[in-house]
Amino acid sequence: MQIAVLGGTGDLGEGLTLRLAPTPHDLTVGSRQRERAADSAAAYERTLADHGIEATIGAATNPDAAADADVVVLAVPAYHLAETIKSIADRLSEAILVAPAVGMQGGEDGLTYNPPAAGSVTELAAAAAPEGTPVVGACHNLAAGRLADLDAELGWDVPVVADDQAAKQAILEILSLVDGLRGLDAGSLSHAAQIEALTPLLINLAANNEELHDLGVRFR
Amino acid sequence: MQIAVLGGTGDLGEGLTLRLAPTPHDLTVGSRQRERAADSAAAYERTLADHGIEATIGAATNPDAAADADVVVLAVPAYHLAETIKSIADRLSEAILVAPAVGMQGGEDGLTYNPPAAGSVTELAAAAAPEGTPVVGACHNLAAGRLADLDAELGWDVPVVADDQAAKQAILEILSLVDGLRGLDAGSLSHAAQIEALTPLLINLAANNEELHDLGVRFR
Repeated sequence: MQIAVLGGTGDLGEGLTLRLAPTPHDLTVGSRQRERAADSAAAYERTLADHGIEATIGAATNPDAAADADVVVLAVPAYHLAETIKSIADRLSEAILVAPAVGMQGGEDGLTYNPPAAGSVTELAAAAAPEGTPVVGACHNLAAGRLADLDAELGWDVPVVADDQAAKQAILEILSLVDGLRGLDAGSLSHAAQIEALTPLLINLAANNEELHDLGVRFR
Repeated sequence: MQIAVLGGTGDLGEGLTLRLAPTPHDLTVGSRQRERAADSAAAYERTLADHGIEATIGAATNPDAAADADVVVLAVPAYHLAETIKSIADRLSEAILVAPAVGMQGGEDGLTYNPPAAGSVTELAAAAAPEGTPVVGACHNLAAGRLADLDAELGWDVPVVADDQAAKQAILEILSLVDGLRGLDAGSLSHAAQIEALTPLLINLAANNEELHDLGVRFR
């Protein structure tokens, strides 16, 4: 499959691209500027080569990347999400959209989950998506820094939500190919908020507990 | 310290009492009816003895148990929480209240976190507590069945929130004595919702994924 990582030049985009590149799927980095996408793709290829992984990473503007993709990962901040979907909407064919964004607000002693009126950022993406385009919520809880460090072991779980069962299954299968990640079925989109809320908890735990940093989660 | 587990005849109360009993602290099971508390306490003593742990578990009505306690664990359902606090309020001296309850509602395909207007059930407990009585949110995410099975290994984390730092530290120290649990500082009470929201996620993951059951969480 062709996987486009929009916002692929950002921290999460970098981590996801690097971790997905060793799978049998083809990766394209999308960005608002094609040149920035190409710079990142070249840098990711070098990082992968340094770890003995030969991979060709494509580069394109977000709409061009999305047009060719079977899976479009929206690795953009929550406040860019609706705009990004709008910019690619008329270019999508049969693609599955994957929404990893989370809405958080800063407080006196850490971050608090701040869901939009839609209930969750994932459901906001679903509302913004063209009719018939399935949206899957996944990868909300991955610490970008550790994800992008190919020397780091992960051992993390990825709760996945969607209303479209086939789309959810496709994303779970892709995740099962990534070393150190385990995709888990967390139900329908209506359950996205409780996954997104985990992200500020992880960040606060890392801030408050000396021995912890760059946290993910394992359900056991 | 004297630890009273109110609602100690219930599933979570049983698990917490059994897991706390081997620590140097003294446990009392509280219930609305003294006789039910005594029956449970005797049963817990037998279970502990079967596992080579000699412990004397006290039994009392909720108010009597709370009056003698340094730590009062409110192991009651969310909808009994305010009423339970009211029933013990004029009996508390220097006790720390521990609130593990979570508000959830059933949906078509699983549970959804359903916070009260206070923001979280933990903050609801704090609002109901007498002035000057510290409330600590903890033990929201512990699967009661596995907790009560002394043959089961846990390996679980317990995020702990409180506005009173000394009270939070006291509860973290108690948790550090429990085999298989690791208490972690998750910040102030304002961050309780993102801990509580994890509970319906855990229940849904166990329902949706064959290999998983009685889930807790490990941050890593």
